[in-house]
Amino acid sequence: LDYQHVQVPFEITLWIMLASLAKIGFHLYNKLPSVVPESCLLIFVGLIMGGIIYGLNDKSPPVMDSDIFFLYLLPPIVLDAGYFMPSRPFFENMGTILLYAVVGTIWNVFGIGFSLYGICQVKAFQLQDVSLLHNLLFGSLIAAVDPVAVLAVFEEIHVNEKLHILVFGESLLNDAVTVVLYKLFRSFCEMPTIKTVDVFAGVGKFFVVALGGVLVGLTFGMTAAFTTRFTKDIRVIEPLFVFLYSYLSYLTAEMFHLSGIVAIIACAMGMKRYVEANISLKSHTTVKYFMKMWSSVSDTLIFIFLGVSTIGENHEWNWPYICFTVIFCLIWRALGVLVLTFFVNRFHVNTVTSKDQFIIAYGGLRGAICFSLVFLLPDFHRKKLFIAATTVVILFTVFVQGMTIRPLVDLLAVKRERESAPTVGEQIHIRFLDHLLAGIEDISGHWGQYYWKDKLEYFNSKYLQKILLREYDQPKSSIVLLYEKLERKHAIELAEAGQLGHAPSHPSLLRSGFLCSNSRTGITDKKLEDALNPDVLENIQEILARNLYRIRRTGPAYNRHTLPGETEPVEHAKEILILRHKNL
Amino acid sequence: LDYQHVQVPFEITLWIMLASLAKIGFHLYNKLPSVVPESCLLIFVGLIMGGIIYGLNDKSPPVMDSDIFFLYLLPPIVLDAGYFMPSRPFFENMGTILLYAVVGTIWNVFGIGFSLYGICQVKAFQLQDVSLLHNLLFGSLIAAVDPVAVLAVFEEIHVNEKLHILVFGESLLNDAVTVVLYKLFRSFCEMPTIKTVDVFAGVGKFFVVALGGVLVGLTFGMTAAFTTRFTKDIRVIEPLFVFLYSYLSYLTAEMFHLSGIVAIIACAMGMKRYVEANISLKSHTTVKYFMKMWSSVSDTLIFIFLGVSTIGENHEWNWPYICFTVIFCLIWRALGVLVLTFFVNRFHVNTVTSKDQFIIAYGGLRGAICFSLVFLLPDFHRKKLFIAATTVVILFTVFVQGMTIRPLVDLLAVKRERESAPTVGEQIHIRFLDHLLAGIEDISGHWGQYYWKDKLEYFNSKYLQKILLREYDQPKSSIVLLYEKLERKHAIELAEAGQLGHAPSHPSLLRSGFLCSNSRTGITDKKLEDALNPDVLENIQEILARNLYRIRRTGPAYNRHTLPGETEPVEHAKEILILRHKNL
Repeated sequence: LDYQHVQVPFEITLWIMLASLAKIGFHLYNKLPSVVPESCLLIFVGLIMGGIIYGLNDKSPPVMDSDIFFLYLLPPIVLDAGYFMPSRPFFENMGTILLYAVVGTIWNVFGIGFSLYGICQVKAFQLQDVSLLHNLLFGSLIAAVDPVAVLAVFEEIHVNEKLHILVFGESLLNDAVTVVLYKLFRSFCEMPTIKTVDVFAGVGKFFVVALGGVLVGLTFGMTAAFTTRFTKDIRVIEPLFVFLYSYLSYLTAEMFHLSGIVAIIACAMGMKRYVEANISLKSHTTVKYFMKMWSSVSDTLIFIFLGVSTIGENHEWNWPYICFTVIFCLIWRALGVLVLTFFVNRFHVNTVTSKDQFIIAYGGLRGAICFSLVFLLPDFHRKKLFIAATTVVILFTVFVQGMTIRPLVDLLAVKRERESAPTVGEQIHIRFLDHLLAGIEDISGHWGQYYWKDKLEYFNSKYLQKILLREYDQPKSSIVLLYEKLERKHAIELAEAGQLGHAPSHPSLLRSGFLCSNSRTGITDKKLEDALNPDVLENIQEILARNLYRIRRTGPAYNRHTLPGETEPVEHAKEILILRHKNL
Repeated sequence: LDYQHVQVPFEITLWIMLASLAKIGFHLYNKLPSVVPESCLLIFVGLIMGGIIYGLNDKSPPVMDSDIFFLYLLPPIVLDAGYFMPSRPFFENMGTILLYAVVGTIWNVFGIGFSLYGICQVKAFQLQDVSLLHNLLFGSLIAAVDPVAVLAVFEEIHVNEKLHILVFGESLLNDAVTVVLYKLFRSFCEMPTIKTVDVFAGVGKFFVVALGGVLVGLTFGMTAAFTTRFTKDIRVIEPLFVFLYSYLSYLTAEMFHLSGIVAIIACAMGMKRYVEANISLKSHTTVKYFMKMWSSVSDTLIFIFLGVSTIGENHEWNWPYICFTVIFCLIWRALGVLVLTFFVNRFHVNTVTSKDQFIIAYGGLRGAICFSLVFLLPDFHRKKLFIAATTVVILFTVFVQGMTIRPLVDLLAVKRERESAPTVGEQIHIRFLDHLLAGIEDISGHWGQYYWKDKLEYFNSKYLQKILLREYDQPKSSIVLLYEKLERKHAIELAEAGQLGHAPSHPSLLRSGFLCSNSRTGITDKKLEDALNPDVLENIQEILARNLYRIRRTGPAYNRHTLPGETEPVEHAKEILILRHKNL
């Protein structure tokens, strides 16, 4: 037996295996995941594992290594989050998200730090040796909402898209603030005196960290898109580049002390569009699948490790400090959300309702990032107290808040996520309105988000696409892509039912959501189904099927900056003729 | 700048990136890969890289770590090889492959070892200090054909299936022999005296290593299949289990000093069938894609590292020893193949032709396994000579033999791989003949391969499938799967051409190979196409399309051990009625 030789890969594989099997186990009993969030169950598994290790070895089980967490476990989750980020709501609510992420986090850090310092002044609590700076340092690591925990809970409760993106976007973008404040206070702790210039340097650093992260991310994202232009002959390594470049962007950002999370998100969001157009359908399935798989495993491992690391002798218990930490975390977050939302609502038509505010405040879960940061603290005599307080806050938010948020969402009747994907009709309307608003903003001279979006789109179609896309003259609009996808799905359904070669059945057509009317027209799907007789439906279907060809060719030309006449009409007409000829 | 912190993952990512970019680079110029095998180009890139590192640092570049090679780079390649191993030719030629792998390798080891010892006795060569045992140890590591090198070259020259499986199967299965002989001679080198009992223990050990590997592999393979029974609710982690279990099988085998390569191949071949039936289509695409991607990257890295490791001061040059090593490797392999094939051909109807023999002998490429083994040798004064000889043999086989084998195959007009997949008609014939031969063997009392195959199939359908498959009453036969795949592909083609809802065009039907006649019937495809007028074709297509439904239901019941009446006819007929009703 030669265990030493294979120990490292063997143990890693076993941990991943344990995590995957735990996940399967929970899903075998359907009732369990609907009551308790998976994150709680996983922490529970971790606690049991930790207890067993502690009982057998009679020493503390190994704690999650901060390096492993930041270098290997966090990137897949953030990459997954960035790649599948719904870009429209994200950019629409960018201002609000940034306000919550930057001002809100700073508010929380100082609120929690100063009020805990106040608690430390009470003689009865025996905490007078904890200085203000240490309290602020602790505040900087405990204030930030954790993307992993938020994602784990919010993916299960299906609140509406805006609410989801507000909480989740905040949890991602506050990384830059956390990085700066945490490092600032840590260096202050080691400095003999703090000058005013250091504080201003901290403010400047924030911009460097955040914008630098975006820059690094976009650079790698564009390089990735450019690289996939040349993979036509070796499709099999296409998915690799998506992972390699985004991971490199994260590592590079970390190397330069920039925000890795911001970098990897910028990279993923930047490259997604071009990579998707360049790589094959199968490669794309692999990318999506592997990203989800990887993030899911990382997520599981993080929660299990959280549980394991909780057991042991790393804690110093002090009732008042720990209880007040939990209370202040709740209070300052609630206050922050209230105050910030007040300002946000003054400048927006589409306001954040009070129900939404409650869920935003209540959904401020803490997780493994705090935990890793607290272990990274330099050794000082109260470190174990901080570790205990952080553990309690994490367990409290994940277990109490995580488990009660679903019933609360039900109770408050918070607006839920819509069940179906937007219909083609809706998409056309949205696009039309975008163009209209861009035009209005252009005429009125108000440079709002539509104006900039339009400019970006112009820049993209004029320069970026030509450099980054392999076949830049044929990018497809999302509507045409959706239509093609539906047609393909429909064809597969037909083939599987053995009905290919006959007219497609109408129920399947209606089911596929293609003919479902736009909700704004006031006609419900049911009514439409009754209103159209089979002949009309067949006719519509035939027209669409024939037109797919034309849409595919002319679709990309539909743009405010190009004229319809720019495509080659002669060749086009000729091909249609050939197609018709074949059909007859 | 904090490079220390991210060094390990950053450098790994950069190496992988370099490998992938090198691969893209070669394929950009289409002419290059058709002349020079990719493996040569990659070694060349490695040589340049090594030269640059050597020039800049003025010390030897790092050599490929044997641990990294055996624990991380080799498993993906072997897993890929095992998972995509064509099982039919493999089992049909099992006897021949085992003969080449076991007897052939032993023959080569002793042949090369003893003749090199003879060379060492020549005083003029100044090699008298190299003992017989050391020569045999060297023989044991240089004799084995390398699966990575063989795969890299043979995948590009497309020889016929039998020839390919003979060379490739040998390169995989000789691992057990190599492991045993290498470890045996290494321990002999350290022992003061060798007893006869040690030699016999070595023979016994071979069976333990080989059969133990198969056992470990099958155990993990079956567990993997069993696990995927329960992943219906979390499709996203399905692909993970395929990788985790096969990697665990490799590591476990290595841990117990068994043959890891044999274990991972047994695991992959054992689980493939059940896993494929249990997991979703998308998961399966991901598994296939990722396996190919991973093995392709590993392969690239190995060859680049080979090149890098060649540069440096690890070599001791001795012209006679090195030249004679190359010559003996060639001679003993050629002799071995000739002698063994003589015996093989006496017992087989389908003989190995002399052209095939030449390619088998010439295709005995050496690669990274030898290289890693020579670095794992215990330190002794002539280790550097062995390293130099191994490097020369690898470079000689990969460059000279690898580059000339393609022209030789062309020159000798070796039978090539058939271009198209077998038609449905052929598959039906093959299956029919299998059943017939199994019946004949059963009656005549001759327990040949068909008899055992049939028994295994019976055991599989009676017990294994019920335990390992989620829906064990609906496994599909390969013919029905092929038909479904063709129908699906056809449907997608139709949808993409915008013709869905109309009768499928006839050329596409013919192109899809479905109606292509069996080559044994004597009617060529062209003639058939002419013979059938469009009406008949349409009729055939309709019958097939309707029958797909019935095949899907009754297909699995077709088995020599079950009666056709065992399916539920009432429910079946009812469903067909509903389907027909819908169509009307």
